[in-house]
Amino acid sequence: MVAPLKVGLAGLGTVGASVVRLIGGEQLAARSGRKVEIVAVTARNKGKDRGVDLSGTRWIDDPVALASDPGIDVFVELMGGEGDPAKAAIGAALKAKKSVVTANKALLAKHGLALAELAERNGVALNFEAAVAGAIPIIKTLREGFAGNSFARIYGILNGTCNYILTRMEQEKLSFAECLKDAQRLGYAEADPTFDVEGYDTAQKLAILASIAFGTRVDSDSIYVEGISSIAPADLAAADELGYRIKLLGVAVKTESGIEQRVHPTMVPKDSAIAQVMGVTNAVTVDAEGIAPITLVGPGAGGLATASAVVADIGDIARGLRVAPFGRATDSLTVAGKAPMQLHEGGYYIRLLAVDKPGTAATIATRLAEQDISLESIVQRHIGPQGGSDAKTAAGPVPVILITYATTEDAVRRALDAVKADRVISGEPQLIRIEKNR
Amino acid sequence: MVAPLKVGLAGLGTVGASVVRLIGGEQLAARSGRKVEIVAVTARNKGKDRGVDLSGTRWIDDPVALASDPGIDVFVELMGGEGDPAKAAIGAALKAKKSVVTANKALLAKHGLALAELAERNGVALNFEAAVAGAIPIIKTLREGFAGNSFARIYGILNGTCNYILTRMEQEKLSFAECLKDAQRLGYAEADPTFDVEGYDTAQKLAILASIAFGTRVDSDSIYVEGISSIAPADLAAADELGYRIKLLGVAVKTESGIEQRVHPTMVPKDSAIAQVMGVTNAVTVDAEGIAPITLVGPGAGGLATASAVVADIGDIARGLRVAPFGRATDSLTVAGKAPMQLHEGGYYIRLLAVDKPGTAATIATRLAEQDISLESIVQRHIGPQGGSDAKTAAGPVPVILITYATTEDAVRRALDAVKADRVISGEPQLIRIEKNR
Repeated sequence: MVAPLKVGLAGLGTVGASVVRLIGGEQLAARSGRKVEIVAVTARNKGKDRGVDLSGTRWIDDPVALASDPGIDVFVELMGGEGDPAKAAIGAALKAKKSVVTANKALLAKHGLALAELAERNGVALNFEAAVAGAIPIIKTLREGFAGNSFARIYGILNGTCNYILTRMEQEKLSFAECLKDAQRLGYAEADPTFDVEGYDTAQKLAILASIAFGTRVDSDSIYVEGISSIAPADLAAADELGYRIKLLGVAVKTESGIEQRVHPTMVPKDSAIAQVMGVTNAVTVDAEGIAPITLVGPGAGGLATASAVVADIGDIARGLRVAPFGRATDSLTVAGKAPMQLHEGGYYIRLLAVDKPGTAATIATRLAEQDISLESIVQRHIGPQGGSDAKTAAGPVPVILITYATTEDAVRRALDAVKADRVISGEPQLIRIEKNR
Repeated sequence: MVAPLKVGLAGLGTVGASVVRLIGGEQLAARSGRKVEIVAVTARNKGKDRGVDLSGTRWIDDPVALASDPGIDVFVELMGGEGDPAKAAIGAALKAKKSVVTANKALLAKHGLALAELAERNGVALNFEAAVAGAIPIIKTLREGFAGNSFARIYGILNGTCNYILTRMEQEKLSFAECLKDAQRLGYAEADPTFDVEGYDTAQKLAILASIAFGTRVDSDSIYVEGISSIAPADLAAADELGYRIKLLGVAVKTESGIEQRVHPTMVPKDSAIAQVMGVTNAVTVDAEGIAPITLVGPGAGGLATASAVVADIGDIARGLRVAPFGRATDSLTVAGKAPMQLHEGGYYIRLLAVDKPGTAATIATRLAEQDISLESIVQRHIGPQGGSDAKTAAGPVPVILITYATTEDAVRRALDAVKADRVISGEPQLIRIEKNR
């Protein structure tokens, strides 16, 4: 009979409390073939009642001391934060040859490579299924589920807050500000929502997925990041009319110039699996070379959903599984050639406010043609008696929507600069990239 | 340096040839940390050119001899069929302490328990990701990805042929027979389509998933099976009108009386993830207790898609992973209490051809009320001047569609028997079960 696996747990918020409950249940031991026990815990507030039974576990005030305590086999880090004490504690655990399970995306996006090296050197596991897309087993899928495949592209809805806001904006024709306020009221968005709505949270998660998919060193600094705060109801209405939805996607693609990593509002065809994902739900689509896309959809947050992933990671350790943290030996991870956004190729949605005077349309068309940009469709949105949100007076600027065929970011930027210099549009053009099914 | 993992491969059809290609690629060794080599092969026709390089591999005519050859570590069975030689070869491999990878759902649904016991006794792996839903990593997800969770329900579109036929019927308003013919022409359906369209293929796959999800012994004999050949365009039109789609689902649910396993055409809400799955694509939704549903969508068949799953299974063996075939120790798998279909509870769609005479509606309503069945909606489909497919003469029977609130199968059957005895309907009533989101 194998001895029980002894867990030290740092962090007892909603996720931590759910981990305690799941480990106390009957499934884990039956599925991993080994008893698992939480033997020591720490959290910020010792006295707080968390509604879980912690009798029989030691309380250790210092997370770093807990992490390297001789009585534990596995250190579970649920404190969060890209710095100490989380970083110091994980480092101490790995050096003491204890496997680590963490949900800490910020720490992994920043220090993932160094921690992976440390885990490898000490022959222990560093598992982090819960760091990306909550209960969706995307890390396991990429690390183990397609062991023989090369990936062409991976993209996903990785932030529930943004998808909730975009869903409400689309379905109820509300503004970004109104939906953000509701998201805050419902606890889906923080008081300072910048990290979520400006795409930084998605970028951290994308950096982790891209590393595993493409065998590259985690590199969140090379990600192009654009958030959803500039999306207007007019964009969602136009997308709907043209057969698209707008989602904040994290996208990593293999291109000739390297791995392109980008986070931005994206027009996706309404009939794609990712377009169906509404509300706080997350989803990831994996394009392995030569086969049809695989999409995983599920809860990206929530105490029990996140705890499920943490406990599955513990189960893998109990079972004796040791997978390289980023899917292959750390020294074989390559430095990804950074594909700059100017070289990005794809279709574009452009919304302009065109000045209502003779020659405007011709000028815009000429500037696009000069950059070899072909148009798939042009919509001059009808302005009813009440006017749309962009409607000025009858003689004011007229909203024009253009969908281009595949072109480069560079060409689009140059064409729009020229159009602006021509003074035939009012304000800044809105630009949304289109991501097609392969 | 660990010695290469030596593979013996039986079966060189499209899947087998793709396995040879993927193993020859660069990804597998990098991801599993070990070189993998195909050292011996067998197939029905030795001379055939399969477009893959088999130089350096031995040809062994007898699959059973190949399976227990001292030169191999892993036996990969891609011959198919629930009997010999596949069964004998897998048995021989396990007894010779070689891990086995197979895509053979028929064999597993019938002899899975005995083979799992044999694998366990000999301390080797028996992996079969490719047996269910092709490239979708659903076996790994259930066995490893939710190690701490209990499942409440699992259901899926597990047969691409049926989903292709239902999709075309819905989108192009064609009959079952017409779509089947097209599916046969395109190679999506066999010359004898019974196994697919009558639900038996789905049932074999469901039996495997249910065993892993609920910790029960594979039991395909206790599955209620109904196919799609009785579905009429009128049903798809009515479903659309009422906010549903019709999919052939395999469903396994934990109920008070045991595990209910059933395969039948099912009305699913249009906004559910499973309803979005069109064409030959497969999908599985997992309802773990306490968390929102997780849905995995992807290609359920195809040479490279199926080979991806086979190679991922080989990768797990190369990595040293040994998971119990059905997710927990074989002697802990319970005999599932078989929940009989009469006890099934849920909503029902009923399509009747009501005789056009006074009192018919009252009679039908009374018979349903006698069984305590409440109605969510009643639709008497409009018959235009051209008539629908069910339209007879103006004075003939009138199609009536009823949607019930949750009731039991028993109650519905009794009510319909009474209605038939009353001679107020013409022909057999059509009955389709409704599966709601939780």
